[in-house]
Amino acid sequence: MNAQDCLQMLREIKDVSFATVDEKGMPHNRIIDVMIVEEDRLVFCTGRGKDFYHQLIGNPHVAISALNKNWQMIRLTGAVRKLDDQKKWIDRIFEENPSMNDVYPGESRYILDPFAIESGAVEFFDLGTSPIHRESFSFGESKVQAKGFRITDACIGCGTCQRNCPQQAIDAGMPYVIRQDSCLHCGLCYENCPVQAIINRNEE
Amino acid sequence: MNAQDCLQMLREIKDVSFATVDEKGMPHNRIIDVMIVEEDRLVFCTGRGKDFYHQLIGNPHVAISALNKNWQMIRLTGAVRKLDDQKKWIDRIFEENPSMNDVYPGESRYILDPFAIESGAVEFFDLGTSPIHRESFSFGESKVQAKGFRITDACIGCGTCQRNCPQQAIDAGMPYVIRQDSCLHCGLCYENCPVQAIINRNEE
Repeated sequence: MNAQDCLQMLREIKDVSFATVDEKGMPHNRIIDVMIVEEDRLVFCTGRGKDFYHQLIGNPHVAISALNKNWQMIRLTGAVRKLDDQKKWIDRIFEENPSMNDVYPGESRYILDPFAIESGAVEFFDLGTSPIHRESFSFGESKVQAKGFRITDACIGCGTCQRNCPQQAIDAGMPYVIRQDSCLHCGLCYENCPVQAIINRNEE
Repeated sequence: MNAQDCLQMLREIKDVSFATVDEKGMPHNRIIDVMIVEEDRLVFCTGRGKDFYHQLIGNPHVAISALNKNWQMIRLTGAVRKLDDQKKWIDRIFEENPSMNDVYPGESRYILDPFAIESGAVEFFDLGTSPIHRESFSFGESKVQAKGFRITDACIGCGTCQRNCPQQAIDAGMPYVIRQDSCLHCGLCYENCPVQAIINRNEE
């Protein structure tokens, strides 16, 4: 599995949630169709009258989440770019997504502008397996930001973290080791470590 | 239909997208279970180790979006409050959502903290009807913010807006009138009005 697989999953789910931040710093969220996925590129469109459009122009940072029928979640954070050659892209979007003609018949389609995400971080998260499974990737020029927790060399090997982990995602050793792809990031190991040997990877 | 109906729809969909804004002003989005819906209250929970938890504590403003099997979209914006009596709420959440025990068995459930949204604006949007149908509501102490467009008394009655509307959502008159519950907010009427008689309701 890689970033491109995650983009393809978003195209298959098609109706995904797009979060933006408005000029007052407030979050907004709505369902948007993923219209085209190519190598390292996700394309969508929106009408120039919509709040969504104005939020994208004012602040290109977006966050997507979506769930497929197998309860697998995809998350993406990245920045959007308005695409040049509006007519070409909108015509291609309508060709590959013909139901758009029901909403925007005839020439009305050209009130839509095309946007692409060409760089971002993606996360795959499967809550349906035991233990849970997660993987992080990036595409374009973005880097993966480590999340969750790590056990440092301050570990005394007492095993408290392992006994507390709801997913049995910690292996014994010196130090004990969190299997990152099975970690919920819940924080139980971090809260219970008697010597504060566990750190938040966000803060490294 | 009212705000409470929309909250109940979110509970039925259950897996909904929650957007937050982090301390750097960046959006994040993930799928979260709606655990309980009561009168004017939506309850969910998250682990104290998660980025989601820290974002909620740092900035309580959230935006939810979700789609049901009939292609009806629900959107909600509001602020969260961490609930007192953590143990009581988490026990009730697990009683009403028993599959939570698979992810957080035994005592591990108490790494979760309960949160509620008790005030907000909601929007119902049905893209499956023709014309489309939308309604906005609020609950708790929030007010509905008007969106979309309005035709002012500067209208000269030329009918350009009506001819351009992709949803036939504009009625003739002096001035012409947009049927707000059928409006896409696409902006075609606004862009094409020859006398700039149409204004964005956000800016009123």
